[in-house]
Amino acid sequence: MTIENIKKKLETKLSPKRYIHSVNVMDTAVLLADRYGEDSGKAALAGLLHDCARDVKADEAIRLCGIHAIKVDYISSMQPELLHGQLGEKLARVEYGVDDPQVLKAISIHTMGSPGMDLLSKIIFVADYIEPARTFPGAEVMREEALINLDKAVLSAVDSTINYVIGKGGLLHIDTIDTRNWILMELKKV
Amino acid sequence: MTIENIKKKLETKLSPKRYIHSVNVMDTAVLLADRYGEDSGKAALAGLLHDCARDVKADEAIRLCGIHAIKVDYISSMQPELLHGQLGEKLARVEYGVDDPQVLKAISIHTMGSPGMDLLSKIIFVADYIEPARTFPGAEVMREEALINLDKAVLSAVDSTINYVIGKGGLLHIDTIDTRNWILMELKKV
Repeated sequence: MTIENIKKKLETKLSPKRYIHSVNVMDTAVLLADRYGEDSGKAALAGLLHDCARDVKADEAIRLCGIHAIKVDYISSMQPELLHGQLGEKLARVEYGVDDPQVLKAISIHTMGSPGMDLLSKIIFVADYIEPARTFPGAEVMREEALINLDKAVLSAVDSTINYVIGKGGLLHIDTIDTRNWILMELKKV
Repeated sequence: MTIENIKKKLETKLSPKRYIHSVNVMDTAVLLADRYGEDSGKAALAGLLHDCARDVKADEAIRLCGIHAIKVDYISSMQPELLHGQLGEKLARVEYGVDDPQVLKAISIHTMGSPGMDLLSKIIFVADYIEPARTFPGAEVMREEALINLDKAVLSAVDSTINYVIGKGGLLHIDTIDTRNWILMELKKV
């Protein structure tokens, strides 16, 4: 499918706000791809589709995880919104015809990250945080940081997630913590 | 060994500041034990000895972990101070003659906590945070909370640890996160 056709379909699947967010993440991801020498076509595709499963209702998400053999751990079963990345990977493949493994992986891990994630995945992970509609405290600093040191921006995004989850009294997913420890060690190598 | 004999020996093994902290944790643990109906003798023993391995140097700690078959994961190998609970359990047994499994467990898990930890372990975990010499922001609130709802105080202590580790750019141990998720679910059951 072309980007334009994907946009048309996606608009019918997401809330207006989420659709705008998705286009924003696409644009920001392309900008970061240009900055860091990643394929901008892949960045656009992954950015646009990263939340394609975000508005699937909790019960339906759990059912689809069964169909697609996505493992549901206790944290995700209590907070099914955490499954939308892995589920998004499946929908991107089945409903939007995406077959690039790098793009699919970036969609899959965009919420919790993953140790060892590649440049494209880091770009989507960070773009999701810093797209223009994000207005949380520190967003502007993170936008600047993302253009200077992408790994530091990944760390800031993870730290920001952890602080947010603690603030609202939610469960922390172990993948988030593993990602933080990994990127911290990557940064310390330098 | 009597508490007095343990004190005498411990004073030779810890820095003056750490020794005072240990006595403070003992006193606070006894107070919490009285409040929640735990054995105050066990609370005193675990409180006094919780940091008995805290001043063992990093290299020596790693060596002793080998001798005592304590598993050293990548986080602990990079931050060996995280091992002092598990190592403390072994020293409490070998050097201070402690054989009560509940006391030994409380010493072992006092830094990162552990899902399912019992009342005595919660008491030591919290007492370590709220003893009178602790002056971090929020310490006073946590002291009051500990007398009203021990589980909430455990959660506050874990959240405080996570915030502290993020602030200093350290690695987060998965046991800390598992403990947080567990106590959060315990609290939500009520």
